[in-house]
Amino acid sequence: MASPSSLSPPEIPMELHAVNRKKFLDSFRDHLSRSSRPLSGFVFLQGGEEQTRHCTDHIELFRQESYFAYLFGVQEPGFYGAIDIASGESLLFAPRLPADYAVWLGEIKSLSYFKERYMVSSTYYTDEITKVLHHQYQGPGKPPLYLLHGLNTDSNNFSKPADFEGIDNFKTDLNTLHPVLTECRVLKSALEISLIQFANDISSEAHVEVMRKAKVGMKEYQLESLFLHHTYMYGGCRHCSYTCICATGDNSAVLHYGHAAAPNDRTLEDGDMALLDMGAEYHFYGSDITCSFPVNGKFTRDQSLVYNAVLRAHNAVISSMRPGVSWVNMHKLAERIILESLKEGHLLSGDVDAMVHERLGAVFMPHGLGHLLGIDTHDPGGYLKGAERPKEPGLKSLRTSRELLEGMVITVEPGCYFIDALLLPAMENTQTSKYFNHDQISRFRGFGGVRIESDVYVTCDGCVNMTKCPREIQEIEAVMVGAPWRLRRQVFLLL
Amino acid sequence: MASPSSLSPPEIPMELHAVNRKKFLDSFRDHLSRSSRPLSGFVFLQGGEEQTRHCTDHIELFRQESYFAYLFGVQEPGFYGAIDIASGESLLFAPRLPADYAVWLGEIKSLSYFKERYMVSSTYYTDEITKVLHHQYQGPGKPPLYLLHGLNTDSNNFSKPADFEGIDNFKTDLNTLHPVLTECRVLKSALEISLIQFANDISSEAHVEVMRKAKVGMKEYQLESLFLHHTYMYGGCRHCSYTCICATGDNSAVLHYGHAAAPNDRTLEDGDMALLDMGAEYHFYGSDITCSFPVNGKFTRDQSLVYNAVLRAHNAVISSMRPGVSWVNMHKLAERIILESLKEGHLLSGDVDAMVHERLGAVFMPHGLGHLLGIDTHDPGGYLKGAERPKEPGLKSLRTSRELLEGMVITVEPGCYFIDALLLPAMENTQTSKYFNHDQISRFRGFGGVRIESDVYVTCDGCVNMTKCPREIQEIEAVMVGAPWRLRRQVFLLL
Repeated sequence: MASPSSLSPPEIPMELHAVNRKKFLDSFRDHLSRSSRPLSGFVFLQGGEEQTRHCTDHIELFRQESYFAYLFGVQEPGFYGAIDIASGESLLFAPRLPADYAVWLGEIKSLSYFKERYMVSSTYYTDEITKVLHHQYQGPGKPPLYLLHGLNTDSNNFSKPADFEGIDNFKTDLNTLHPVLTECRVLKSALEISLIQFANDISSEAHVEVMRKAKVGMKEYQLESLFLHHTYMYGGCRHCSYTCICATGDNSAVLHYGHAAAPNDRTLEDGDMALLDMGAEYHFYGSDITCSFPVNGKFTRDQSLVYNAVLRAHNAVISSMRPGVSWVNMHKLAERIILESLKEGHLLSGDVDAMVHERLGAVFMPHGLGHLLGIDTHDPGGYLKGAERPKEPGLKSLRTSRELLEGMVITVEPGCYFIDALLLPAMENTQTSKYFNHDQISRFRGFGGVRIESDVYVTCDGCVNMTKCPREIQEIEAVMVGAPWRLRRQVFLLL
Repeated sequence: MASPSSLSPPEIPMELHAVNRKKFLDSFRDHLSRSSRPLSGFVFLQGGEEQTRHCTDHIELFRQESYFAYLFGVQEPGFYGAIDIASGESLLFAPRLPADYAVWLGEIKSLSYFKERYMVSSTYYTDEITKVLHHQYQGPGKPPLYLLHGLNTDSNNFSKPADFEGIDNFKTDLNTLHPVLTECRVLKSALEISLIQFANDISSEAHVEVMRKAKVGMKEYQLESLFLHHTYMYGGCRHCSYTCICATGDNSAVLHYGHAAAPNDRTLEDGDMALLDMGAEYHFYGSDITCSFPVNGKFTRDQSLVYNAVLRAHNAVISSMRPGVSWVNMHKLAERIILESLKEGHLLSGDVDAMVHERLGAVFMPHGLGHLLGIDTHDPGGYLKGAERPKEPGLKSLRTSRELLEGMVITVEPGCYFIDALLLPAMENTQTSKYFNHDQISRFRGFGGVRIESDVYVTCDGCVNMTKCPREIQEIEAVMVGAPWRLRRQVFLLL
């Protein structure tokens, strides 16, 4: 039997993290120089630790903290890492494991193993941090440590600065590192792109596999299981970028469906639309892909109307993306095209400019058009320090309001949903009621929604869509009755 | 095509948790009465909360805290629960969700929905706890709250007592609840057994599926993926009881292989043994199953020798299990049988009694024979307050030293491993060197190990093995070349 996949997990390019460190160090030195600060001391990060569940010894599968993963690529828990600002040397500190680790948890790897694997200048144990850094430091006074502390604008949480016994013997700085390191993560290198591309390839293929196997009568979670299996079995992806959203029927109007309180447990019915938002992660780098299709394999006229409205928005945005373009304007472009399409479909009537002004777009697409993507699904850097969030409906949900830059990877995920909680008030509102063809729109209550989401890489003069799913209605219908689907591997020069 | 599964997810019997509450309340009232304390106040627990990963908005898939799951069965995060000791009424407190939850996360369910679903006496919002409990309380003074606080003897962590705004208006007790509730969890009801049985059935079937598909050249994680997919796709099991251990070759001597620092990433080679320790969880109740087999489908003579040593121990223990039997003695029985078998196989020589006395068994089986199983993989209650752990090698790893009781579910998981870190010192030790046939045993270095693990339910006069995997060598070899395997559904009267 032919393999259900044309892919296999690529070798992990560990030099990726050395490249990340080099780029960051250049940027950080530059930053220090501009404020006339000495190029000495250490950038110092603490990796993640395994977590147990409540009071038990159940250990959740560990996944490295993202900033630490970016600079060091370490998959094991319990590490610290430093970059010597003066020499540029990188130092990793590994936990000193007890002898019985070898019996219970595996080979105790040597410091030289970690040095070679993670391509750092030197490796020590975590109980040597103070001694080693004091020895390494050439400047006057206590060695400065630049620690990671800053706001994540998606979670509103602050990153936790490194801590260790002996930190009192250093001069710590909490303000300088976070913005510089975050901005490095915003612009992807060629090696980072190659991993995001693989995560996209295997996830795109898995989406096609799911489309083919989806049948009326199945449970939503079975679609999740098919996706997870395909990406792990053939792509070696042990983690997903986020919990799979497998929404069918009315659930497809719930933007973040699939969590423990809404656990993908509905039965697929004839006539349903499915909205599947699922992306695998490969060596920390993720993908974030949504496909929408009718579970019976054949679009109705109404489904086509809504689907094509979203597809036109998706394509128009991607056609317009290049460095310098405002993401807020891209969001508005998507909104406008969806509203125009709904007007052509006789769901709305009146002047589209006026609808945009009244923020009617946010009734149908309450979420932002897209977000930065990388080691985190909602990659940091969406709002630079001091940047204000838009306040208007829809726009206030944007995870970034920046202008596009070459090297960004950003999701393009327009959607059109029929959400009673938003639609009914807008239809009753004296200001906006007039735009709705109430008779027409009433048959879309319970329709759910459509989202089409691709991961797009901004190049010097345009962009590349890294996601390779069937998007046109005829492509989807063909694939669902068994037509072949080739991942048309994008040929583009890596930077 | 025939379905690869003969199973489908059973309806979840929510009355299970009402039965748990009733049993617990009887036991708790009894306990209070015996110390002449008034039967008033509330048992009060806090459910788990969703956790984000480090500073990001990445939310790990939520799984309820186990004690809360036991009493209330609530799958959603953010709840509190109370049992009124006087009236026996059960009260659930749900989080009051903001209006935009409906847009992003799904339908906002009503209090009456939760009351019906979780079969409690009444439901309120979490911001009403103080008011409601004060109103409900009939006794004098501040209402007493019995909170959960106690040691988990597997993790050495303490459970975190419930906390909420207004707790100062109550008289809190941290000592009484934990031991009583823990002991209730030790003895399973018929409904609990039915869920553990289903988790065992689907996991047993998935193990057979993995055996059939395992081939030289595959990666260990592909076996994990096959297992996860089978249990989710056909069993609706979104969670596993623990991270899958898919160890082949020498890795099979690493007792807790498979975690992030040893991530099931070896390639299967001809001649390898595989040791697969994987169990699915269904509505909180788990399974914990290990199968060992040669990846090429055919046992060598040496593999048969080690495998049969472990199988004889596994079977002898199960044949001996009944209420009143000491688990320490079961551990020693398993050790003795393994040592005898190794002697028969000419790896050891000398007096087996003397070997047992010298704790030679712990060289080959450094872990405990088994542990209580339920809502946690290492279910609590293994050591009652004041109970001392054995100190001897092997025995000190036991997660319980209790006598068996009717209603316990406990894993029987003897193993025999060739671990250099243990074997070499024992072979050099002047006291124990004489027992080893050094020439013979040297060819087992790099062999790895064998573990056979079943989940066993203690009945009034014996026990029932709930695990349905092929165990005899000829059964395994037959299944691996495609012979059918029927889950011989155990016919036993539920209590």
